[in-house]
Amino acid sequence: MHSSEVRRYMRSIGQAAQTAARTLARASSAQRNAALLAIAERLQRERRRLKEANECDQEAGRAGGLEPALLERLGLNDDRIDGMAEGLRQIAALPDPIGAVRDLHVRPSGIQVGRMRVPLGVIGIIYEARPNVTADAAGLCLKSANAAILRGGSEAIHSNQAIADCIRYALAESDLPREAVQVVEITDRDAVGELITMDEYLDVLVPRGGKGLVERLLREATVPMIKHLDGVCHVYIDDQADEEKAIRIAINAKTQRYGTCNTMESLLIAEGIAPRLLPRLVDLYQQAGVELRGCERTRALASAVQPATEADWETEYLAPILSIRVVADLDSAIEHIERYGSHHTDSIVTENYTRAWRFLREVDSSSVMVNASTRFADGFEYGLGAEIGISTDKLHARGPVGLEGLTTEKYLVLGDGHIRA
Amino acid sequence: MHSSEVRRYMRSIGQAAQTAARTLARASSAQRNAALLAIAERLQRERRRLKEANECDQEAGRAGGLEPALLERLGLNDDRIDGMAEGLRQIAALPDPIGAVRDLHVRPSGIQVGRMRVPLGVIGIIYEARPNVTADAAGLCLKSANAAILRGGSEAIHSNQAIADCIRYALAESDLPREAVQVVEITDRDAVGELITMDEYLDVLVPRGGKGLVERLLREATVPMIKHLDGVCHVYIDDQADEEKAIRIAINAKTQRYGTCNTMESLLIAEGIAPRLLPRLVDLYQQAGVELRGCERTRALASAVQPATEADWETEYLAPILSIRVVADLDSAIEHIERYGSHHTDSIVTENYTRAWRFLREVDSSSVMVNASTRFADGFEYGLGAEIGISTDKLHARGPVGLEGLTTEKYLVLGDGHIRA
Repeated sequence: MHSSEVRRYMRSIGQAAQTAARTLARASSAQRNAALLAIAERLQRERRRLKEANECDQEAGRAGGLEPALLERLGLNDDRIDGMAEGLRQIAALPDPIGAVRDLHVRPSGIQVGRMRVPLGVIGIIYEARPNVTADAAGLCLKSANAAILRGGSEAIHSNQAIADCIRYALAESDLPREAVQVVEITDRDAVGELITMDEYLDVLVPRGGKGLVERLLREATVPMIKHLDGVCHVYIDDQADEEKAIRIAINAKTQRYGTCNTMESLLIAEGIAPRLLPRLVDLYQQAGVELRGCERTRALASAVQPATEADWETEYLAPILSIRVVADLDSAIEHIERYGSHHTDSIVTENYTRAWRFLREVDSSSVMVNASTRFADGFEYGLGAEIGISTDKLHARGPVGLEGLTTEKYLVLGDGHIRA
Repeated sequence: MHSSEVRRYMRSIGQAAQTAARTLARASSAQRNAALLAIAERLQRERRRLKEANECDQEAGRAGGLEPALLERLGLNDDRIDGMAEGLRQIAALPDPIGAVRDLHVRPSGIQVGRMRVPLGVIGIIYEARPNVTADAAGLCLKSANAAILRGGSEAIHSNQAIADCIRYALAESDLPREAVQVVEITDRDAVGELITMDEYLDVLVPRGGKGLVERLLREATVPMIKHLDGVCHVYIDDQADEEKAIRIAINAKTQRYGTCNTMESLLIAEGIAPRLLPRLVDLYQQAGVELRGCERTRALASAVQPATEADWETEYLAPILSIRVVADLDSAIEHIERYGSHHTDSIVTENYTRAWRFLREVDSSSVMVNASTRFADGFEYGLGAEIGISTDKLHARGPVGLEGLTTEKYLVLGDGHIRA
């Protein structure tokens, strides 16, 4: 497609989304939930079509030499289709975030002032191979009464379009505008460039993909973003830690899953406890197949540890690799975290009350923990009911983002003919 | 100064602010309040120096042909110095927004999860002639435990530096880092360009100036902003309005002050009530010296009204000018507001319960009101205790922004050796 056509196409999508957003904002909770359930049903009823469309994508992927890991993510089988439907039903069952009024109170002037939670408007979501994100993202946006523009990866285009057909059908069935959820149907790279700069139509962008995508958006997007960068997470074992808790947490934070952003990448251990604890930990990590890279003091205590370079301290391995550093005390641990960390999730293991609270207060990360595994940093574990992603930003939404992150509040003022004196 | 020197200078300020921010985040509430009171005292003690410095600015302004309105804003007399000190004392007396933990609750996994309010970090504030903003902005940032980089207008440079000296002295006296509040001491235009792109040091920018400034920042800034664009505010008088309330509100919303962003710029009036109400309103506006521009139906009811053009409906006059339109009903009023408004503040006058709530729900503005003057849209009137500005953004802070807008929340997780299953 010529770039001016891409532009025209994308802008028509943006405009339609904005109109749909107004209708959605007025739709009742019951109507939005009914649409979510209708989509779930439609997806399951159309499972043959979905699998056929997915087969097209898979074939093209195999022919194009797509990596096995990506091919695996791309796959839609009965389990995954039922999973999408189940996810939508769970979203429907969550409390409605929209319309709640809080803190309505009378001011000295006589007016009542409060705040009402309302949708943001139009949300753009950019993602990669997994077609199930199409249903998931559509569900989160609908529940929060936002119109969605979904831009999936070109490798999943047939699957995404088949899912989009189900969504459109179910929306129409529920008397909601079909444009409430739009899947971008062209694969031109220009389409992303257009989407991320349509700030007159979009209220927020949620990139759900690798760091490369987020970095491109940081350079080019004019629409504000809820975004996730690195997860360089730490566990600091204080010299007043309970040793069994420390070992349990340090092993779980690294080995429970390697590829997640809340996995520990660097272990800090106080010099007072390192001689007792490090050899045991190193054994356990080695049994689990974790490659260890440490500072000199770590290596003096455990010779199996390879030397760490400066780059190790700021690396998100997303793999069975761990960097280990012996530090003097809490202050050195906090200093290390501030310098090398990514402000995502950091945990202290200690029995000392004052140090626990100092860590909670002074570590500037989206999740700070005491005596718990960093792996808990997750919308479901925190009770948000759903997760759009984990934000490493400070403004608007920080840490795991639930439906509330897709909403905003406006002020209500109730008067009885009140005027300003 | 050469642009590479400007860059070096600005980056050294950014770095110093970031270091100071960490110290500030750990400072106690008492220490931050003591600093605020010390600044207030210092400003009053140094009033002669402040007035001398201000005289330099005034002279330069007169010599350079600065407009009388700007010269007036630039002035620092005893009243204004006492006003700055009083403002700081009021900020000191406000509750500390920092450190509050909310919603700490036990999850099924056994961990306790809650949220703690914390400073954003480093805040850049860009403003124009008024030197009192230097003290005001410094006070709001210190209270919220943020480091501040203040960039005032070049026309107030001597006054701002004299105020900065007082702040530095008081910070040192209170054992807080002098770099907690830095006033940019160079007037090069490049300095702003540097400041607004130092996203590795700054967490947020607050432009406090005209639309031109905000538009420049929208194009060039990479640091996120809390910003204010237009205030095209409406009052809609429904045909079920109480006539006396309607007149009181419509007059107050326009004439109480002309130059403020929450002043009504367009009056919408239902056709059912216009014949009775419009002639009375037109009389009152004319007595107040307000120039009226209306649609044809308005002019048919009040011949003194000039014709409005399409441009009038989207103009923020900030002057004794009002556009008036007769509309069919609530739906047409909402449609007009959505199309021409700026999503700032809009008010309905009605006795009808259902229409009142429809207006509150459906109008997508940062403040929506029933039977109250738009002039109430203000941080002090809403009980925020302080106001950084009024945000027309939807993300992070919307509407009048108090100290909370300069903070964020992080998640706390308290465990007892908990690991993820």
